Amino acid sequence: MCRIAILGKGNVGTHLHRAMAAAGIEADLYSSRGFDGFSYNPDIILLTVKDDVIEDMSTLLASRLSCFNGVVAHTSGSVSIEVLRPFFNNIGVFYPLQTFSKANLSLKYSEIPFFIEGSDSDVTQKLESLAMLLSRNVFRLDSPQRMKMHIASVFACNFSNALFNISHGILEEAGIPFEVIIPLIHETVRKLETLSPKEAQTGPAIRGDSKVISRHLDSLSSYPDLQNIYRLLTEYINPDNIK
Amino acid sequence: MCRIAILGKGNVGTHLHRAMAAAGIEADLYSSRGFDGFSYNPDIILLTVKDDVIEDMSTLLASRLSCFNGVVAHTSGSVSIEVLRPFFNNIGVFYPLQTFSKANLSLKYSEIPFFIEGSDSDVTQKLESLAMLLSRNVFRLDSPQRMKMHIASVFACNFSNALFNISHGILEEAGIPFEVIIPLIHETVRKLETLSPKEAQTGPAIRGDSKVISRHLDSLSSYPDLQNIYRLLTEYINPDNIK
Repeated sequence: MCRIAILGKGNVGTHLHRAMAAAGIEADLYSSRGFDGFSYNPDIILLTVKDDVIEDMSTLLASRLSCFNGVVAHTSGSVSIEVLRPFFNNIGVFYPLQTFSKANLSLKYSEIPFFIEGSDSDVTQKLESLAMLLSRNVFRLDSPQRMKMHIASVFACNFSNALFNISHGILEEAGIPFEVIIPLIHETVRKLETLSPKEAQTGPAIRGDSKVISRHLDSLSSYPDLQNIYRLLTEYINPDNIK
Repeated sequence: MCRIAILGKGNVGTHLHRAMAAAGIEADLYSSRGFDGFSYNPDIILLTVKDDVIEDMSTLLASRLSCFNGVVAHTSGSVSIEVLRPFFNNIGVFYPLQTFSKANLSLKYSEIPFFIEGSDSDVTQKLESLAMLLSRNVFRLDSPQRMKMHIASVFACNFSNALFNISHGILEEAGIPFEVIIPLIHETVRKLETLSPKEAQTGPAIRGDSKVISRHLDSLSSYPDLQNIYRLLTEYINPDNIK
């Protein structure tokens, strides 16, 4: 069995450490601040530090671990495997696709998809086996694909949450509690289990209902940023709208 | 007990009829095409036709129902109660907030919010009592509030589905099945049960991670419409980004 060192006590590091403990994997969590070496020789080091710090931490690690022959992998969606190349022989990426936050303790790790990349097939297999102990959904992706995956998750999750926030603000102004719209949001997502998003599209934009669209735009006239977002998404859904 | 006539066999009419049958309410469903009168005298008529046809149907109905003293209500989110005023004495709105589609037979009607408006308190109470037989979530909203509610649901549901479709396209191009991102979408929505959307916001925009943002924008360079949507939403989330 491999011994894992997780370097970085942020959301990703904390959650991975918890998941590994639950799966009976020997893993230790180290803070990246003031890091001065491991208490044992790990087989796999997971860098769970912020994207911008991966390179600096690699420099530090490489200076401490002369002759290290294990695997060093980062956990970032948007950083190439290449950033690790100058420092180590066996490098990889171990990317869990999830919206981690520390408050969020009841995550089902077995459903989180993990995306794996390795500098050679041995490394890839090692990281893949580790991920498979945590999750039923493990995939191989190269760095350009992982970047696409990350962009797709920004649209599907970060940006849809921004739309929920816009909705929240509009309701608040009208004196309506946000809770009333949550069942509809659940249903919107539930539909994706049987329909593609294209098939599931409803609303005035897809119907080409120009009267409703212009009433909505008028009603948003004090909020030019929301009007712009409304216009762009209406046009995306149905290019016949708003020429 | 009231006797209900539902006029319009579209998604809303079909689902309301099904829900009323399940709740033991006497309701009949009539097609608006070739409509030539009811087989009995209804207490409440629900107009479930398309927004643009509500006025024409009211003209037709009024010509057939001289001396009608029941309630006539439409079921639209974005049409004012006033459209019915020239035709009937007792008018109202009976708006179920849901993304109805005919394929979608397993809806839990008891969780669907209903928004009620009436021309006087008697009408409002009649419609409210009817809605309460179907749902635990019944609210009174006037026409301007209902318009805000509708706009909020366009952002939260129709537009977030459009973002899921963008995500689908990006993944498809990278050879990644859309299914892998669905758990993350579920988690994004599940967070709304304990956090406000503002508190739940994650991703490069809220972190102000300009390196990742510009890498993403570069990667979308062949899709100016997606770049524009990315830019606007990134700026909405954090006005410090992209000046």
